Amino acid sequence: MRIGELSRRTGVAVPTIKYYVREGLLPAGRLTSPNQADYDETHERRLRLVRGLIEVGGLSVSAVREVLAAVEDTDRPVHKVLGSAHESLTPPHAVGGAELAGAREAVAALVARRGWQAAPDSAAGEALAGALATLRGLGHGGFEEVLDAYADACERIAAADLTYVGRAPDVERLVEGVVVGTVIGDAVLSAMRRLAHADASARRYGAADD
Amino acid sequence: MRIGELSRRTGVAVPTIKYYVREGLLPAGRLTSPNQADYDETHERRLRLVRGLIEVGGLSVSAVREVLAAVEDTDRPVHKVLGSAHESLTPPHAVGGAELAGAREAVAALVARRGWQAAPDSAAGEALAGALATLRGLGHGGFEEVLDAYADACERIAAADLTYVGRAPDVERLVEGVVVGTVIGDAVLSAMRRLAHADASARRYGAADD
Repeated sequence: MRIGELSRRTGVAVPTIKYYVREGLLPAGRLTSPNQADYDETHERRLRLVRGLIEVGGLSVSAVREVLAAVEDTDRPVHKVLGSAHESLTPPHAVGGAELAGAREAVAALVARRGWQAAPDSAAGEALAGALATLRGLGHGGFEEVLDAYADACERIAAADLTYVGRAPDVERLVEGVVVGTVIGDAVLSAMRRLAHADASARRYGAADD
Repeated sequence: MRIGELSRRTGVAVPTIKYYVREGLLPAGRLTSPNQADYDETHERRLRLVRGLIEVGGLSVSAVREVLAAVEDTDRPVHKVLGSAHESLTPPHAVGGAELAGAREAVAALVARRGWQAAPDSAAGEALAGALATLRGLGHGGFEEVLDAYADACERIAAADLTYVGRAPDVERLVEGVVVGTVIGDAVLSAMRRLAHADASARRYGAADD
């Protein structure tokens, strides 16, 4: 298909498609004449993935490039590729200051207590430590009392996610599923948690105040 | 305290503090001479909140301004203030296109099925519909099969969150707890879900590949 058709099918503007090609997020089309390129379903699929990661997942262009490199590197064992994709999906948080050391200990204790096969000093572990350090700095260190309720919830979610992505027909689709599930899944989870908050808040505070 | 001391205590640079004051995120200090202002613990607390919302929560300056307006508007019933804070904490997602109508129906069906006292057309409901529409557009509409596992998890998390913030001594602290818990809680949840993914992935794929 021509670039105009690709744009129409995906809702991504032609200049944006050209920008993604220049930035290496989308392979160039096959040239059919000096001024005309042909795109196929693999371009369409990749373009939807890039757009979802940027617009819903909030990833930067360089973060998307790293994630796609992990998706394409299918020579390595699945577990390693998934690990790389995970690492590149977790943005670093440069916060914490004085509270960071204690927060890191809390993360290591959590991982040990849950028996998780996960590294406390991975990008995810560091992001968690940064968030906990921020809570401590805000006088909300008591929030850590609910961490195990969060961990119970995350274990259920991770099991559901793995069941879903485990149905993928090949490694490339599996990794794509993990990328999509991780990034768009964050958006799903964040939005759904707010709906559940609205419900819990209406039940607890609504009757007395409405 | 002087601005230098405020900077030292919070780790926020003096020019950044002045920028927050200009942008209305932090009240000006009390002038003790034409060139010198005095700050107290309320400034320190507010500054930590602003910094956490921006650096860990990823909120924009204008989003922080809206959230703070909700925190300060304590004349309204608690439930309404919480609702406003929630709405302003949920960024709009301008995606979906052709898939959005079906995704909105899926959100309405989920809310009805769970019996949630929450509006499907709230900011959170729209954000969820946008994320589901993106998944459908990516050929991952099957992800909706795990939505109830996510909803179970979110109900547990919301109950834990409410238990925590319900201990706040007054309405202002309650709303601040909701803001912090919602925004920083997203960061906690996102990071912890990745750790749980790493664990689930290691258990399922690790043995065969390592």
